[in-house]
Amino acid sequence: MPLISTTDAWKNLTELRDQMSGVPLSELFDADHIRASDFTIDLGSLYIDFARQRVSNDVLIGLTALAETAGVSGFIQRMAKGETVNQSEDRPALHMQVRRTSGDGEDAPLKAFVSGVRKGEILSASGARFQSVLAIGIGGSELGPALILDALGDAYGGALDVRMCANIDGTAFARATGGLDPRTTLVVVISKSFRTMETQANAERAAIWMQTALGDDWAKNFCAISANVDEAGKFGIDEDRVFAMLEGVGGRFSLWSAVGLPIALAFGWEVFTDLRAGAAEMDAHARSAPVRENAPMMLALLTVWNASFLGYGAEACVPYDTRLRKLVDHLQQLEMESNGKRVTQEGYPVDYPTQPVVFGGVGLNVQHAFFQQLHQGTTAAPVDILVPARAPTGDEAQHDLLISSALAQADALAFGKENLEQPHRHYPGDRPSTVIVYDKLTPFMLGKLIALYEMKTVCAAAIWGINPFDQWGVELGKKLSDSILPMLSDTDSAPASLGSLIDILNRMRRGDE
Amino acid sequence: MPLISTTDAWKNLTELRDQMSGVPLSELFDADHIRASDFTIDLGSLYIDFARQRVSNDVLIGLTALAETAGVSGFIQRMAKGETVNQSEDRPALHMQVRRTSGDGEDAPLKAFVSGVRKGEILSASGARFQSVLAIGIGGSELGPALILDALGDAYGGALDVRMCANIDGTAFARATGGLDPRTTLVVVISKSFRTMETQANAERAAIWMQTALGDDWAKNFCAISANVDEAGKFGIDEDRVFAMLEGVGGRFSLWSAVGLPIALAFGWEVFTDLRAGAAEMDAHARSAPVRENAPMMLALLTVWNASFLGYGAEACVPYDTRLRKLVDHLQQLEMESNGKRVTQEGYPVDYPTQPVVFGGVGLNVQHAFFQQLHQGTTAAPVDILVPARAPTGDEAQHDLLISSALAQADALAFGKENLEQPHRHYPGDRPSTVIVYDKLTPFMLGKLIALYEMKTVCAAAIWGINPFDQWGVELGKKLSDSILPMLSDTDSAPASLGSLIDILNRMRRGDE
Repeated sequence: MPLISTTDAWKNLTELRDQMSGVPLSELFDADHIRASDFTIDLGSLYIDFARQRVSNDVLIGLTALAETAGVSGFIQRMAKGETVNQSEDRPALHMQVRRTSGDGEDAPLKAFVSGVRKGEILSASGARFQSVLAIGIGGSELGPALILDALGDAYGGALDVRMCANIDGTAFARATGGLDPRTTLVVVISKSFRTMETQANAERAAIWMQTALGDDWAKNFCAISANVDEAGKFGIDEDRVFAMLEGVGGRFSLWSAVGLPIALAFGWEVFTDLRAGAAEMDAHARSAPVRENAPMMLALLTVWNASFLGYGAEACVPYDTRLRKLVDHLQQLEMESNGKRVTQEGYPVDYPTQPVVFGGVGLNVQHAFFQQLHQGTTAAPVDILVPARAPTGDEAQHDLLISSALAQADALAFGKENLEQPHRHYPGDRPSTVIVYDKLTPFMLGKLIALYEMKTVCAAAIWGINPFDQWGVELGKKLSDSILPMLSDTDSAPASLGSLIDILNRMRRGDE
Repeated sequence: MPLISTTDAWKNLTELRDQMSGVPLSELFDADHIRASDFTIDLGSLYIDFARQRVSNDVLIGLTALAETAGVSGFIQRMAKGETVNQSEDRPALHMQVRRTSGDGEDAPLKAFVSGVRKGEILSASGARFQSVLAIGIGGSELGPALILDALGDAYGGALDVRMCANIDGTAFARATGGLDPRTTLVVVISKSFRTMETQANAERAAIWMQTALGDDWAKNFCAISANVDEAGKFGIDEDRVFAMLEGVGGRFSLWSAVGLPIALAFGWEVFTDLRAGAAEMDAHARSAPVRENAPMMLALLTVWNASFLGYGAEACVPYDTRLRKLVDHLQQLEMESNGKRVTQEGYPVDYPTQPVVFGGVGLNVQHAFFQQLHQGTTAAPVDILVPARAPTGDEAQHDLLISSALAQADALAFGKENLEQPHRHYPGDRPSTVIVYDKLTPFMLGKLIALYEMKTVCAAAIWGINPFDQWGVELGKKLSDSILPMLSDTDSAPASLGSLIDILNRMRRGDE
């Protein structure tokens, strides 16, 4: 397939972009009195308002044509059917299948394990009931589960204290195990390859920690999630404690698979099932709704419009909900690792910008941080403003304040306010945002919301023609790191770029306290 | 003063940029064999290596001339002397003075209070010793203290459990007070104006919470940090429990002032003094070192070069240190709220890009998240890679892995790796980074590191000609929010842009569970 930028659909959008240049958002609202209710998608418990994006009706029609030209729908159907949509790794992408599973078939051992641990039928090697879980994993093995644990912990948390550990710097491990008793802790090692350096290092730390309590029985308090059962076995974990993840499930799409074990342990199998069901509902919507009514497709098209046509290099995500404070970290991986690429599935360099930088944080906090720049900076960024309809803790009066603030930001960004006499109080406006309102944050709703962004990511990739499922960009650094390791003690072998840096590091490391 | 872009120094840099366009970093290293040790600043315990930035010797000379043309040095000296450097608010910027103070003069009441609480001489109204502190504040009143509490907690934490609460969504308050006993909790309300909506709302929540334990004596467990002593008194807090902050200290520069009370309570006055002393040392360096050897000035010039000349719209900050995981949040406010502006101090619109988006996260975690895009995305971003020379928990072998990884990323980003046969494995390179190595993360070092970025921010503002100390951009949203609040229950009064959104919110809020 040729580059999407060579198609008529793309060229038409370029022309529309030029025609619209300089037309303020307020004029678009004035010219179209139903815009505010029309440029929306209403899914009942989820409502998406993109009226403040810099798009006209013609642009929406053009974007719909672009999705059709790019064959986005077909790509999603092929993915859903398990066809090879990840060409560079010659693999399918199976996360949609995984979340349709019932917990019976292939999931049965995992479900039984969760139930056994939570009911106290599966015990620690010390004979005691498990009180805590230390889950070791990095990247997709951490970010998805960590988001869910944090988001649902207030409402669904129970007896098991589930912690996650990713980094190898020692602090992460010390914090994750702080206050835990190894005799009542279950260690879950999550690594698709079971060769991830960081996870290996922390699994070894955990083994030593566990040995202090259980001696040779340390491995009995371990289990693993991996696509490499052999390697997990070599580490010492019993085969019936190694739960398989499929090769075709990528890390950043994996929380629905066995990688979600920490979630199921923390909240029970039913919550985990609800989470998957919410995601599956979004999948069904994405597969069946026409482009203009298709929530993830429209979000993808707006990102493509903003990044590839209007030239925005960054997008912000701002949930007005402390429970979603880890969503940005998850989206950074999901979107930037999936679509931060420069060649098509067929290997041709693109001639348009792809994935923008994703950043953000919790509202209202970030109104007092980076919103200054969103309003008055030279570098603006489109914002997704996520608003929970319900007060998380039942405090309706405070929730009114929160909702008013969120809506005020959307309108202030869009319409600005002229002040020619005091230029520092002039707000130029025309800064795009999408408001996403969601009903009660149940596991089902959370699954739906995350799947919305997953599917958006895949749709955007399909438009740009890139492969969202590989991540070759991280390989070079890993390889280089292996070669640098011995240079730390043998500076002479270091390349010119690193010699003095390593000398300085060694000088400081040798120095007195 | 005319726009800096009209000066010869700026035009010269534009020419140099065009001349250097397309010259790979590897060629710059090949052509200059001392580049790796020469394009550095060595401050003993802090080492800055910017050899992988896309600059030549000529560019460095040009940037130095730009700093001189812009009068950066003079601006810093005027700030240090307490002159009016914040023109739109007709105020000085006094954070440098604040951190030079000894704890005797104006600080004496604060120091005595900290000592009294920590020694158990100042007791709860219940007669018990304080076990915990709930600090309520948002923006600058939260981010700086929260960063320090998290960064130093492992090594310097003690008996007092100090928590922070910023958001009004209920979840933040519930989490911050989870497990705390109001009878042994000191509440610190931090708000310069004492009218910040979020802080007011949470202070009221805290008062109700405290009343459940102490009845009418609730205010005896409260203290406040504010420049508005009257307003704090009206809330009910005793005058001798209100510690003043100066009008001339901006929120994002305020952790060194009384706003740092949570830090002093958590770790003691000595740690707080060391933190300030480290920052003061950086101030002295910034005031005296020539541009080319001046760490914050060089960081500022590189940001100006990357943003205004090379067109990068985002910068990443990646500390390979879990203790600094909150640094990015702090820098987002510090840099984006200070310099996310579009007019000069004199009110003229700039014709060049100013502050880029700041994002980031902890290494190695983010290598498994957004680094794919840094290596192979169409939208690259310069990265600050922060490397602790010492192993935080004494585990030297793991620390070798961490250091190797950090250095590998810097070289991989800079030099890439050609692979024409497998385009998805082609790494284009020429992606700029700065490596910052720091010795043991003491309070002194942490103060120095944060002041490095503060001073960098001010220097960049001085070059761009903008005012880093105001934040008018946040006013419009606040004002609009007040007007939207009554519309939530009176939809008919809502503007066309908001009517249907408010209807949907009300529909969901009315809905069944």
